[in-house]
Amino acid sequence: MGIIVQKYGGTSVGTPERMRVVADRIVKAADRGDRVVVVVSAMGDFTDDLIELAAQIDPEPPEREMDMLLATGEQVSIALLAMAIHATGYRAISFTGPQVGIMTDHGHTKAKILEVRADRVRAALEDGQIVIVAGFQGMTPDGQITTLGRGGSDTTAVAIAAGVGADVCEIYTDVDGVYTADPRVVPDARKIDEISYEAMLELAANGAGVLNLRAVEFARNHGVVIHCRSSFTDIPGTIVREAYDSMEQAIISGVTCDSSEAKVTIRDVPDHPGVAAAVFTRMAESNVNVDMIIQNISEAGTTDISFTVPETDLVRARRAADAVVQELGAREWVVDESIAKISLIGAGMKTHPGVAAQMFRALSDAGVNIDLISTSTIRVTCVVSGDDAATAVRALHASFGLSEDEITIESIPGCGEGE
Amino acid sequence: MGIIVQKYGGTSVGTPERMRVVADRIVKAADRGDRVVVVVSAMGDFTDDLIELAAQIDPEPPEREMDMLLATGEQVSIALLAMAIHATGYRAISFTGPQVGIMTDHGHTKAKILEVRADRVRAALEDGQIVIVAGFQGMTPDGQITTLGRGGSDTTAVAIAAGVGADVCEIYTDVDGVYTADPRVVPDARKIDEISYEAMLELAANGAGVLNLRAVEFARNHGVVIHCRSSFTDIPGTIVREAYDSMEQAIISGVTCDSSEAKVTIRDVPDHPGVAAAVFTRMAESNVNVDMIIQNISEAGTTDISFTVPETDLVRARRAADAVVQELGAREWVVDESIAKISLIGAGMKTHPGVAAQMFRALSDAGVNIDLISTSTIRVTCVVSGDDAATAVRALHASFGLSEDEITIESIPGCGEGE
Repeated sequence: MGIIVQKYGGTSVGTPERMRVVADRIVKAADRGDRVVVVVSAMGDFTDDLIELAAQIDPEPPEREMDMLLATGEQVSIALLAMAIHATGYRAISFTGPQVGIMTDHGHTKAKILEVRADRVRAALEDGQIVIVAGFQGMTPDGQITTLGRGGSDTTAVAIAAGVGADVCEIYTDVDGVYTADPRVVPDARKIDEISYEAMLELAANGAGVLNLRAVEFARNHGVVIHCRSSFTDIPGTIVREAYDSMEQAIISGVTCDSSEAKVTIRDVPDHPGVAAAVFTRMAESNVNVDMIIQNISEAGTTDISFTVPETDLVRARRAADAVVQELGAREWVVDESIAKISLIGAGMKTHPGVAAQMFRALSDAGVNIDLISTSTIRVTCVVSGDDAATAVRALHASFGLSEDEITIESIPGCGEGE
Repeated sequence: MGIIVQKYGGTSVGTPERMRVVADRIVKAADRGDRVVVVVSAMGDFTDDLIELAAQIDPEPPEREMDMLLATGEQVSIALLAMAIHATGYRAISFTGPQVGIMTDHGHTKAKILEVRADRVRAALEDGQIVIVAGFQGMTPDGQITTLGRGGSDTTAVAIAAGVGADVCEIYTDVDGVYTADPRVVPDARKIDEISYEAMLELAANGAGVLNLRAVEFARNHGVVIHCRSSFTDIPGTIVREAYDSMEQAIISGVTCDSSEAKVTIRDVPDHPGVAAAVFTRMAESNVNVDMIIQNISEAGTTDISFTVPETDLVRARRAADAVVQELGAREWVVDESIAKISLIGAGMKTHPGVAAQMFRALSDAGVNIDLISTSTIRVTCVVSGDDAATAVRALHASFGLSEDEITIESIPGCGEGE
């Protein structure tokens, strides 16, 4: 008899009717003999309604009070879900994040989990109860209520799974797993049965929205097996776990597309030592999150410096760019908001140096111009025009045969396999 | 510089606009140099909406989970009120009941406060903050969230006032104090400026809805001065405190009317020892809350036993009466739901034995028939027909001159003053 953790999002519990469906699924797991812990988010629009109410009262509400307010959303869900399970004749008990000892730092609205004291969860499980835990929330060591920010309920689920030593943490969502590409863009994208933490982290960090990045990081650090699956069907989804010797490690796990960044270019910067440092110190001071950076070849003593930033940081980035242009005597800055970051990800590519070259060729054959390039040991990212994004994703998906069981890596002169 | 506790009900904070009005009133108190603790209820219909949601999911929800659910109502209020104060430029901090150490027993949905550990409130006050505390909720010593039942926020306010040693606990409501009778029934009813705990307890227990009975009991036990006043005006309301020597103790404080009970009569019960015990043991076993009891003079070896019960207990009372009739061989039981308990209350009547007689005469003169009578040292209660209730209240209010400053006690032969 094992322990499983199940996590349901706000859409899954958005109405009393849906809550009953979720309760039935939970009870089925209990019937199979598992001890079940459920982590749940706020119902549908509950959180948005509270944010709207707060905005009417205080245009800049203190973050501590926002956490006090928003934590109620999950508390409503856990109580109602415990009732829905009770109505089926099973015993259930609900706990808030503070009650089950989700201890966090003081980073209100985006707190980080420091520790999970899962004694109360364990005691309730041993008492034969189904345990319902509020996602998204925790408590500082001095007793302040905190929330964990976007995707926080996934992180709560993984943290609780680590705390109680669960066999698996099932993350229920509206898709049935992690795909080799977004099925809306690539209709023959293939569901990935099993993937390593490492590859999943790169997927999550580069635009695959199914699993929250911090939750995957937490799972990797604590060895929690995640099963990402659909709340509408019983078919298995995608297992995320430590890579093991006999694991069928795909050379390429998938292609992602991230359209949430913009490209900033500083034109004709005098090319002397310390210029890049000056630009990015200024950006950091302005709290701008710089991602990819490229510096073009110098012409006539000046150079262009380009970098990408999240669109949400653009207001601050423009202000900082103004200062940089003036300070360094550059010509101007320009912003391109219509860019897409296309990434090819796979732990297997470490040993297949042909991958990057094949990627560039596939994009070229599809008529897609590459703007910036960055690589890690298990990822190659190209920035392309936003208009070319879908074409680029489809071209790469086809070129590497991602819809097949066997990945196609071409043999490229000078950088083939085994070299 | 003193500490004051202010309590606002759900109507006072029902909308963002009203919340701003309350915030302004709080800030004014802070401007006067007082340290302010505010206790607040759930916004308007918030709690009712949650109860409705729960009913859709589970017809008989566990009380522990109801408390988990309903406690969110006050948590939303405190966060938003703290924001409303923040928006005025003042510093405020909100706390849930568990956070400020409102420790209760395990009586979910109607828990009793065992202890208040007000350290966090005191620390925040010393830090110069306005402290906002969630009413109606607490925590058991083993960390379960509880609610205090009807009127619970008044009790929280008094308990916090006791915990921090406040100079006064101001209970804000939609009327401007405690009256000698319900002003809707008696237009010239007079506001009482000052009243003892003892008389206020009898008023609250007998249908004067302004202050919660348990809150007054808690105030008496801990010597907390209550100021019951309107949230719409600045005029003083009614002070409730320990009677002191020079206190202008009214002989009669007021007339109350309680229409929430029904009268049950068991007819032709064989009149032998142990009959009353048998009836009321059966009622107690059926969890029926019996209030007034009268046993008529025996005729031909049988007697009638009448008693009043809350209308909410009637279903159980009828079932128990069936059993009693069968068990004792009585003729039948009858229920009269249209009764009213009219009470005359005043700590001063202890030394004025003419009061009861004057009350009976006034009712008789007004053509009101008295059904049952019960008395305590500071109260005389008559049960009359519900149709006569308003006539009875007005007759008593006039007979004792309650709209004047001086109470009128007639000299009655045989039971006059000083006898």
